[in-house]
Amino acid sequence: MAPQVSVIGSGETWEDAAAEIGRLLAERGCTVVTGGLGEVMAAAHRGAKAAGGTTIAILPGERRDDANPWADHVVVTGIGHARNLAVAASGDAVIAVGGGWGTLAEIAFAQALGRVVVALDGAPEVEGLRTAATPAEAVELALAGIE
Amino acid sequence: MAPQVSVIGSGETWEDAAAEIGRLLAERGCTVVTGGLGEVMAAAHRGAKAAGGTTIAILPGERRDDANPWADHVVVTGIGHARNLAVAASGDAVIAVGGGWGTLAEIAFAQALGRVVVALDGAPEVEGLRTAATPAEAVELALAGIE
Amino acid sequence: MAPQVSVIGSGETWEDAAAEIGRLLAERGCTVVTGGLGEVMAAAHRGAKAAGGTTIAILPGERRDDANPWADHVVVTGIGHARNLAVAASGDAVIAVGGGWGTLAEIAFAQALGRVVVALDGAPEVEGLRTAATPAEAVELALAGIE
Amino acid sequence: MAPQVSVIGSGETWEDAAAEIGRLLAERGCTVVTGGLGEVMAAAHRGAKAAGGTTIAILPGERRDDANPWADHVVVTGIGHARNLAVAASGDAVIAVGGGWGTLAEIAFAQALGRVVVALDGAPEVEGLRTAATPAEAVELALAGIE
Repeated sequence: MAPQVSVIGSGETWEDAAAEIGRLLAERGCTVVTGGLGEVMAAAHRGAKAAGGTTIAILPGERRDDANPWADHVVVTGIGHARNLAVAASGDAVIAVGGGWGTLAEIAFAQALGRVVVALDGAPEVEGLRTAATPAEAVELALAGIE
Repeated sequence: MAPQVSVIGSGETWEDAAAEIGRLLAERGCTVVTGGLGEVMAAAHRGAKAAGGTTIAILPGERRDDANPWADHVVVTGIGHARNLAVAASGDAVIAVGGGWGTLAEIAFAQALGRVVVALDGAPEVEGLRTAATPAEAVELALAGIE
Repeated sequence: MAPQVSVIGSGETWEDAAAEIGRLLAERGCTVVTGGLGEVMAAAHRGAKAAGGTTIAILPGERRDDANPWADHVVVTGIGHARNLAVAASGDAVIAVGGGWGTLAEIAFAQALGRVVVALDGAPEVEGLRTAATPAEAVELALAGIE
Repeated sequence: MAPQVSVIGSGETWEDAAAEIGRLLAERGCTVVTGGLGEVMAAAHRGAKAAGGTTIAILPGERRDDANPWADHVVVTGIGHARNLAVAASGDAVIAVGGGWGTLAEIAFAQALGRVVVALDGAPEVEGLRTAATPAEAVELALAGIE
């Protein structure tokens, strides 16, 4: 099975970085998992698709149509913010790009479950996380962690 | 995007029917979603893979390794029985094959959310469901409902 | 600790029966748990409060204000329909009064978890449930099951 | 309805502080909500009961018996770590006492939902939280926030 890497975060200013991370993950053979909505989530999926990768959206709501247009597969959870647990748990590694409170919850769950977590500079600051200065470094650290 | 059809149920005696349904769905271009564990879930995935299809496991626990070996993509929800909501919600249509209380919960959620639900004879009896006598008929009814 | 009994269901025509069940449960020293919204849920709470009982609402949404006015304690789950699992699991016994698909999901979860389940005539028909013709009989069967 | 305050956290060294917070909350007429298990959760409940207060446990598992002995009312969610969302959402205010990754997830959810969040010194450090040096100050800040 292909490694699965979750890209979490939010904020329009982080879309370029997220797209770059999605592209690099796809080039390395990883499936890109996100929360399935816009901004960082959509950009990571878009980057992965541009590189021929595979994408999975894990949505909070009850409608498949809420997923961004670059989602290949859509899991409709219906459990609101609690789907953040599924996003965190479904990644062999998790990369945080920008983001707010929802991202912080995902980081916390990923750490609680022993997933590899990498925070790109600008993500919520949490003691004990691997941090990366660039998308390429974030992807390297994530993949190194799960090998 | 490919249609997604969830195959739900349990019981070793239903594995042949589930594999046949998985195969027919894959031949018709559908992605096969299940709860990701054994028996009916594993058989539906196995049938889909034998026909070159794509499969998604939506697991109740916290470990990706719990998925059956025919799962291409694995969503690790960590929410126990509540993942039945996600299995039901993630199918454009839902086909029930055998099954017990968990299957009944999935049928109920799928109906509550307006998904197309088809019960192969032998699944929990619920008033108002479309029923099918054979795997082929179940797949026909499911696809007719979502077109 | 007081026994907890979950009253599940929906439908305006069932409110009198639900209120009677809430009253009888309170008189027997049980805490009445519901999904916290209207109709059967509100009526069961109202009946319990009229008899001096204690009530708990387990809400699907994110706002405490959604609870009916007879809820003493409010658990705000934020997980939508998946809160039906918590309603079912939190009762030592579960009594179904009228109801639709959501009620059926709760019955299924309660059975999966080994809770005592009693269906008042008119609730979704499910093989293997204890059934009761009157509110008094439903309460008797529920309490007999958990003693 | 009585205000509900969630006390979150973990760590044996924080039990005295948690018990003091539970006691002060009960004296101020608040219901004390926790995740229902041991250490900080049990201590907060114990403190509240010593002052004649009311306590609610929101458990991750499927068994009511998992609750600590000072829980008056027990909500059995069955959704694992995702119950942290319910603990955060069910408090009009949330007080963090010590704690690790699970606590951080609860803080994040509480902030995302606009709850009043107070961190006693020693809780996970998160930018933007109200912080308190003593249990008494934590309770004052929490109650000031919801009035």
